Amino acid sequence: MLKLDLSKIAGFIPQDYVDSRKANLEQAAQMLAAHNGPGGDYTGWVYLPRDYDKEEFARIQAAAKRIQQQSQVLVVIGIGGSYLGARAVVELLASPNYNLKKKDTPDILFAGNGLSTDALLETISLIGDRDFSVNVISKSGTTTEPAVAFCIFKTMLEEKYGKEGARERIYATTDKARGALKGLADGEGYEEFVVPDDVGGRYSVLTAVGLLPIAVAGIDIQALMDGAAQAMEQLSVPGVDNPAWQYAAARHALYENGKKVELLACYEPCFRFFAEWWKQLYGESEGKDGKGLFPASVEYTADLHSMGQYIQEGERLMFETVVQFRPKGEYVIPNDPANVDGLNFLSGKPLSFVAQQAMRAVILAHVDGGVPNVLIQMPQLSALSAGYLIYFFEYVCGLSGYLLGVNPFNQPGVEAYKVNMYALLGKPGYEAQKSELEARL
Amino acid sequence: MLKLDLSKIAGFIPQDYVDSRKANLEQAAQMLAAHNGPGGDYTGWVYLPRDYDKEEFARIQAAAKRIQQQSQVLVVIGIGGSYLGARAVVELLASPNYNLKKKDTPDILFAGNGLSTDALLETISLIGDRDFSVNVISKSGTTTEPAVAFCIFKTMLEEKYGKEGARERIYATTDKARGALKGLADGEGYEEFVVPDDVGGRYSVLTAVGLLPIAVAGIDIQALMDGAAQAMEQLSVPGVDNPAWQYAAARHALYENGKKVELLACYEPCFRFFAEWWKQLYGESEGKDGKGLFPASVEYTADLHSMGQYIQEGERLMFETVVQFRPKGEYVIPNDPANVDGLNFLSGKPLSFVAQQAMRAVILAHVDGGVPNVLIQMPQLSALSAGYLIYFFEYVCGLSGYLLGVNPFNQPGVEAYKVNMYALLGKPGYEAQKSELEARL
Repeated sequence: MLKLDLSKIAGFIPQDYVDSRKANLEQAAQMLAAHNGPGGDYTGWVYLPRDYDKEEFARIQAAAKRIQQQSQVLVVIGIGGSYLGARAVVELLASPNYNLKKKDTPDILFAGNGLSTDALLETISLIGDRDFSVNVISKSGTTTEPAVAFCIFKTMLEEKYGKEGARERIYATTDKARGALKGLADGEGYEEFVVPDDVGGRYSVLTAVGLLPIAVAGIDIQALMDGAAQAMEQLSVPGVDNPAWQYAAARHALYENGKKVELLACYEPCFRFFAEWWKQLYGESEGKDGKGLFPASVEYTADLHSMGQYIQEGERLMFETVVQFRPKGEYVIPNDPANVDGLNFLSGKPLSFVAQQAMRAVILAHVDGGVPNVLIQMPQLSALSAGYLIYFFEYVCGLSGYLLGVNPFNQPGVEAYKVNMYALLGKPGYEAQKSELEARL
Repeated sequence: MLKLDLSKIAGFIPQDYVDSRKANLEQAAQMLAAHNGPGGDYTGWVYLPRDYDKEEFARIQAAAKRIQQQSQVLVVIGIGGSYLGARAVVELLASPNYNLKKKDTPDILFAGNGLSTDALLETISLIGDRDFSVNVISKSGTTTEPAVAFCIFKTMLEEKYGKEGARERIYATTDKARGALKGLADGEGYEEFVVPDDVGGRYSVLTAVGLLPIAVAGIDIQALMDGAAQAMEQLSVPGVDNPAWQYAAARHALYENGKKVELLACYEPCFRFFAEWWKQLYGESEGKDGKGLFPASVEYTADLHSMGQYIQEGERLMFETVVQFRPKGEYVIPNDPANVDGLNFLSGKPLSFVAQQAMRAVILAHVDGGVPNVLIQMPQLSALSAGYLIYFFEYVCGLSGYLLGVNPFNQPGVEAYKVNMYALLGKPGYEAQKSELEARL
């Protein structure tokens, strides 16, 4: 399913970069399997593609059908891991232009992932007078952005459909037992789905958190799980031939040899938000204790005419990971009899041939410029291949965090700004910090 | 118009960072003004907001009106500087959801900025049977991506409207005197606009390159130019009080003190592609000779729950530049009598108040975490303020390149992959390289 080519990092790191990390990889894989490494309480994602709740899965599919029938718009309220996974997969598999397309599934609008007044007002106006439903996704129910957004859209639903009608259109994905949103959902009688205790936000795309919006967009979530299950099976086999072990070792060796930035590149515009999901996965897992590769992304070939100059000749601080998909369609380049643009040597060739040669050309140019390249080749984009790739990146991330010597499953740094924010907002109990912070501003 | 706050970089760099660079800034400003520094032939953008071709500007406005009347879709074909500026401004001022909105101006679809077969097929299907026009933007007419796309969409137009009809719907922005596209446009009788000789692609958004698509989206391009002219006038005044001098000095000092990544942050989702335009501007201008700040971007508050962990606690290799706009609308947070989410201390407060406190909270948290912060405060988003900001970033970029000791107006590294690509594609004349490259793959 996935072909990993590491030949273009040779020369940048010692040849034995996998073997020399074998013991550590073995240990990391064992900790993931046994849930007993740092942050082991949050490694429920490891066997999720096999152990997921089949009853809830069927309810997700049924709820998706109901939403498709009852509404022309689904508003998905969530932030961080309760936002990026769903958006990544919807854009990857149903297109970044999903909402623009003619289709018999609802538009999907994401809300509660920011505090922009103008963006909120625009979302409201995009709904217009169309029927809409809401999927609110929050483990606690008290994260500021989604809580504010849910308050707003719940009020809108109740004004439009009455309290009864609104209840039929609100789907709450939250903690299974406690929390503000859980209490509200129980009280109001919303249909509920679970954010598992042992799966952190950035690993939650294959739980109800990601699956419900993805299913509403008409994507085959069974195939998505099947792809992930394939990856789980193949990547759990220990050994230096395991592509996850190899990639994790390569990343770690490149980092130790001075590469501080990993640049994720793809030649498909629909990959843009998948790269955003990947940035959270890796940035939040590895970026701690003053360590970690800085995750960045580019969209080729567009960015060859933008960041391309920097990548070729700027600071030598990065390596590149390129994800390639075989195209689904075909387009043959027409003939221009006048050959005005001098491109007639391409006439009659498929556009995918040009893309393939461009990618090979770029890899060699960047390697010659001092940028090691990792190539991940995938079959056609599908729910199956996307599921595989999601699990691959998740598993490599777990291994990578342990190789780096950090807890890949916590995110202590995210609290720092929140405490400041509560104080500056005047939240009861934060009075002392408030004046101290104001004095610094 | 623009308020620059550099108080949150104090402590990370020597206090005299502006004064110690005064002589170099003076020289840089003089070279920009006199067009006699490295790359001076490409500094036509410096006085462009004053000296632009008024006759052509009127033709751009007239052509935009004609396109609005004749078509429901404008396909804009271009890559790099012939793509990012127009998309940045359309998304910033007319929304990333511009195409989704109900409006009396045409949808705008960007093409020729990649080689993805599936993205091309989707663009064709999004046009559907609607009337469309094409703005092809290429100085030479031989850059592979736009040349291939133009060949495709020109053929589609001619099949749909005949050769005569197609001529009325093709607008060519190209070299004023030579090149493949110029020759074709002359021969076919397309309306033509000029890519000036003395303005490089990444500086071309305020020429016909950017202005025609921007005007078609219904944006006031006169106000855009007026904003840029205001910036030009204010930033051309030499001295250490000049905010462009201060920001350029700060960037350079931070870079010299080990900060290798500049992270551009904004709290408005509509800023996403403006950040992409900024990445090309800075990455391509500074990223050479093994030097330059690596430009990256984040969208807050979404990415506080994603890259936020890395920024707070990962490798200490970056500083942040935050752009803040005053919101256009207002939204008051409703009251939730049950106070389920514990957020009732925010009831009745405008959402923009929460956003403002969040921003201040983040700045202090990141500074405490070792990330210097630069804050650029703007009035409401408008064509005027956007024009100002564009020129501000352009001018700072020119100064910055000279401070760094590079030619900020060339991009020699972009050729490296192109040579490889032509060889691998079998372009006549590249036979020798082809076998050599194939052997390495």
